[in-house]
Order: sequence, then C-alpha cells, then structure tokens
Amino acid sequence: MKVADRLAAMPTPALLLEESRMLANIDRLRERTARLGVALRPHLKTAKSIEVARRLLAEGNGPAAVSTLREAEMFFAAGVRDILYAVGIAPEKLPRVAALRSAGCELSVILDSTDQADAVVEASRAAASPIPALIEIDCDGHRGGIGPEDDALIRIGCQLSEGAELRGVMAHAGESYGAVGEEAQAEFAERERAVAVRAATRLRDAGLRCPVVSVGSTPTALAARNLAGVTEIRAGVSTFFDLFMAGIGVCATDDIALSVLTTVIGHQRSRGWILVDAGWMAMSRDRGTANQAVDQGYGVVCDAEGRVIPDLILASANQEHGIVTVRPGSRATLPDFRIGARLRILPNHACATASQFDAYDVIPAEGGKALARWERFGGW
Amino acid sequence: MKVADRLAAMPTPALLLEESRMLANIDRLRERTARLGVALRPHLKTAKSIEVARRLLAEGNGPAAVSTLREAEMFFAAGVRDILYAVGIAPEKLPRVAALRSAGCELSVILDSTDQADAVVEASRAAASPIPALIEIDCDGHRGGIGPEDDALIRIGCQLSEGAELRGVMAHAGESYGAVGEEAQAEFAERERAVAVRAATRLRDAGLRCPVVSVGSTPTALAARNLAGVTEIRAGVSTFFDLFMAGIGVCATDDIALSVLTTVIGHQRSRGWILVDAGWMAMSRDRGTANQAVDQGYGVVCDAEGRVIPDLILASANQEHGIVTVRPGSRATLPDFRIGARLRILPNHACATASQFDAYDVIPAEGGKALARWERFGGW
Repeated sequence: MKVADRLAAMPTPALLLEESRMLANIDRLRERTARLGVALRPHLKTAKSIEVARRLLAEGNGPAAVSTLREAEMFFAAGVRDILYAVGIAPEKLPRVAALRSAGCELSVILDSTDQADAVVEASRAAASPIPALIEIDCDGHRGGIGPEDDALIRIGCQLSEGAELRGVMAHAGESYGAVGEEAQAEFAERERAVAVRAATRLRDAGLRCPVVSVGSTPTALAARNLAGVTEIRAGVSTFFDLFMAGIGVCATDDIALSVLTTVIGHQRSRGWILVDAGWMAMSRDRGTANQAVDQGYGVVCDAEGRVIPDLILASANQEHGIVTVRPGSRATLPDFRIGARLRILPNHACATASQFDAYDVIPAEGGKALARWERFGGW
Repeated sequence: MKVADRLAAMPTPALLLEESRMLANIDRLRERTARLGVALRPHLKTAKSIEVARRLLAEGNGPAAVSTLREAEMFFAAGVRDILYAVGIAPEKLPRVAALRSAGCELSVILDSTDQADAVVEASRAAASPIPALIEIDCDGHRGGIGPEDDALIRIGCQLSEGAELRGVMAHAGESYGAVGEEAQAEFAERERAVAVRAATRLRDAGLRCPVVSVGSTPTALAARNLAGVTEIRAGVSTFFDLFMAGIGVCATDDIALSVLTTVIGHQRSRGWILVDAGWMAMSRDRGTANQAVDQGYGVVCDAEGRVIPDLILASANQEHGIVTVRPGSRATLPDFRIGARLRILPNHACATASQFDAYDVIPAEGGKALARWERFGGW
C-alpha cells in the first residue's frame, strides 16, 4: 500500500513523523556542533524511541542525555552506554542508578546540593564503585543549579572527588526559550558557556579534576558562536522541532517533523468551526505559543499532505474533540472539508504531543518505501 | 509492607488513587441519579481502567459511555456490554463499530449531520445489522450538536429510522464547567434537559421512535433538580474529582481521589522555590484553574499523607521538574523539606493527569490491606 493510501486508511488521531525532516534536523545540529568543536550529547526525552535514538546517536551507543531513569533503562537495554540522567538526583533513585552502572551502563547524575552529594557518596560506598556526578550550575534563574560563585560549589566538588566521582559541571539556559531571534539566543549561549566554564575553573583552581563542561538547550545549541572551554552540548527538541521553536525563530514551520493526523467529525458553520478528532488527548494541553507574538492555539492546521493551510488553527480542544477555526483577526475563509476528510496538525511542543502517543507512524525519507511504525515509551 | 512504608519506598512520580474517596464519589452520583429517577451511564474516559469500571458500573457490564473506540474495545473485552461511543462518529471508524457489534457489544454512536447518518446507514447495510445512533443536540454552543429546532433533526431521524436505528438524542452541557455554584449549574442542567426533551418530542411528533434521552456532565448531573423526560445521565470526572471541579463548587478539595506522589529534588531558597520530580509529564499541561477565582498553578501541594499544605502550590512545571512555591499574595512561609521528602500534588484535571500514567497505585479503602496497582490504558 502506498504511503498516501495508508495515511488515508489509518485510524486517527495518529502521530506522524516525517523522517526526511527529522534527518535534516539531526544533520543541522551535528554540523553546528562539529563546527564549534564540541561533542554532541543528544537529549532523548523528546523522542523516547529506540529507532529515533539509533538515527540520532552517531555510533548508536551514545553519548546521550535522558530525563527519567526509565529512559536510561530502556536506552541502555537497546545498546546506549554513555548516559547522563539530567534531572537533579533524588536519594531514593540511587539504587536504580547503581544497578544500571553495575550492569555496565556508563550512567552519570547531576546535583546541586551537599545533601545530594552526601547521598551519592553513600551510594558509591554501598556499591563499592564511584558514581560520576556533574554539578548543576544556574546560568539564568530558570530552575535548578547553584551560581558559579557559590561557596557550596567547592564543598560539593570536594565531597564528590573524595567519595564518588566529580565528572564535571553542567548548565542549561532554559530561559533561552523566551529569547526571540538568533542574536538574543546567542547571548544566552554565551552566558551559559561563561557560567559553566567559570564554575569549572573554580573547581580546577581548588585542585579538583573537572573533565566535563556540558551546556545546552535547543536555542543555545543552534545559536552559540563560541564554545571555548565547553566539552559537550545537549539538545532535545531540535530533532523534531515544533511551533514554539518556530515562534522564536529557531526553525521554520516546514522543519517541524511531527504532526497529528486527524479526521473531520463535524461542522458548526454558523460559528465558523470545524470539529476534528484531535483533542487535547492527542495534542496535549501544551499552549506554549499562547504568550508568543503569534498564538497558534493548539496547533497549525495542514492538509493531508502536510502543507500549511494559511491562518487555520486548532483554536480549542476538549478531550477527544478539537475545534478548527480561522485565526482571530484573519480574513481567510473557512475551507469546507467533508466529514471524514484528513488533516494534519503541527504541535506547539513536540515533547508534550509525542508523549500522548505509543508510537510514531513514520513517513519514510525514501519515496516508495512503506510506512514504518516506531514504538515510543513513557513512564518513569 | 504497610501502606505508609510502601508509599515511602515507591518510585516517583506515581499516580495515587484513594479508593475510599473514589467509592464515596461513586455513591454520591448513584444516590443523586437514583433520587432523580434516571439511569446512570458513567463515562469511563476519565479512569480508563477495568478495575475502576468494575466499581463504577452497578452490574459491572454497563451501561457506560466512552470517548474512544479503544476504550470500547478494552471495556467490552472486560465484560462491559452496553456502551455509548460519545464522540461524533467518523465514517472510517464504522468498520470497528460494526466489528464490536458483531462480537456482541451493544455499541451505539452519536452524530449531528445527514452525512454521518448516510455513513451509518451504509455501514448498517454492509453489516446487515442496524447500528444504533443518537442524535447530538446542542444545548449551550459548547462544541457539537444541532439545535432542537433545526430542520436537519427530523431528516437525520428519518434516515436513521429507515436505514439504521434511531436510538434517541443526547446533549452535553459542556459550558456548565464555567458555571460557579449549584444554582448556576442547576440552570445549565435544566437547559440541557429541556433542549434534549424538546428534540425528542419533535422526533416523536414526526412519528419516529426516540427511546433514549441522554444528558449529562459532572456539574449538571450533580446539580439537576428535575429530569422529567430524561432516561439516562452521563458523568465522568465525578469518579475522581479535581481542583477544577472544586473551583466551581462541585466538590471539596478533600473529595479529590487522585494525587501525584512526588519527591523533593532541590531548593532555590533565595527565590522561595522547592524543586520536585513532578513536572508536566506527570501533572499534564492542564492549567484549567488559571481562569478560575483561585489559580492553583499545576496543582495543590499536600503532605505525604494527603493533607493540604495551606497556600503551597506547584507554581510551574518543566518536563520532569516542578517548582513548588507559596501562592502569590499569601503570607505563608515556605516549609523546609529535606531532599528526598515525599509530597502529593492534587491535579487541576483528573482526566488529563491520569492520562500521563500507565497505572494507579491504589490506597485501599480498608485499612491494613496492601497497596494495589490498577492498570490503565491510553490510545485510540
């Protein structure tokens, strides 16, 4: 069955992945990091898919970053060995970390307090094997991390060096998501770099080894101009991109590799509404573009082939109902789709929309090949 | 292991279900519908769990409403027979409907257009078995449905009567979610009733059979005072309740049966933040209380035993990070929880938060019993 026929027959809602766009996005990030002379540690939290990881990881076995221990376990089982668990470690999670490490996974953790360092030291002793940890450095007040000048930095560094393994420092410029345009994002990238390098320098000046300086977010990874002192860069959503990233100028709408295939199930013509079977259960409740210059509702509507229909958005969503309308203020006329017609919706946030599905229906990069189905997983 | 010890050792984030609260919520809805003299058709889209359905359905086999065909297939496989698929039918979904019906499931569908009725007639002919359909009636401009005076009503009724089965009419007062207090909700209930009964009357006056008059939403089901002419009522979120329903006065915070168990993973004391491992992947992106009188952020924070901590909310969320703060404007002081401490977060929207998890960890109604794990499912 041809891809177009298969798409026409597929149950909806379904999560479509255009492999050619994904591969182009992966190439773009690879070229960027190669030019900057740093290693690339893709974040697998967006895709949560073995098949995507195989295409994303140069050698197929890492390095990679994850956001849950379940991701670490699943990707390790699939052959990924060098994994950074990039969420502040909780003491109760250390037995799972130790179990993965004793099975041969090169798993490292992050932390930003002496209490967490105590727990990592204790778990290292219990496992009779030092657990590598990076100290999280705060570069923009986004969420976790200590400042590069914080007194605790050296204390934590000493704790880890003595009782576990001080692997390095890491920073994440989460506030770069609010920076519009490459110039503004490059400033966040420079701050992320400078702060991480400063923390590494302080640790080294205190006589501690600090081999890894890890930074990254999709906007800063793609906008950074100079990464002197940095050893690796992380990025996640750049694999698929989404409307949020398009809204801050990091990608074009046509770079977005994910969409939700949906079916028209009704009309309310007097109100200018088309009802579709993609509600928030399919799109997620993410309204990340609500505060951007252009509010995309729950997503931008495309035709069945993926071409954007100008000014048509998924304006609101119930659990299994989406309401498609012309964007407020636009003079476009509402198209008249028959009941049963197929549309695609580009998502606000790839991580959130993908997490609503168990699998990607993959439109293959090579024409003529059959549609593939790549499983994805959730949970913790 | 005692429940408290099990909760202390459980991986987080986890979805907790307090069975005693759930059973009390189920009893409340049952008593209400019994007093009103109508049948109860619980909506299973909130729970998506066989174990919850067993407790929710009086005889264990229906009647029930669902929001996806996957729910219909899963619940039918578990013994539920009388099922209403309560989302406007798309023609491509009719083969699955027919397959379920030929396997013995008493599945009915809803629709609001002559095009859909044509498709149902055609599928009935193909299956050599009439598919029962209810006509969706719009009572408040919420999403689907035709008005009770719409000319199309009789046309659709005739189509179904001749070529399929006109089972009845259904209405859903979705706008009642914006009505605060029982008085306002009772007005929506009366409008929902009056509109559905009017449509049924018109169909009967045209000589058509219209045995079922189905209405409902959680607010209207619990506030309705008179359901003359109605045969059944539907409600979903009333099984668990949530902060949104508490915000419009339908339940108390202490009635909310679901919460997310989380672990403290960091502090940003200078900013008044506690970081926990429940981000939006656990809570969902639902911010339904944002436009209510009291904005609960991503949820209300409770201690490990489920007691609300005054004025402490999950103010913001990244994928796997939640930021707990004192509610803006409150003079409460931020408690000092140790790294590793356990908290619970009450959700804005039970349907959305539950859908982020594969299972409920159930705190049993009878003390002394072990924690149970009830699987839930997603997908379409």
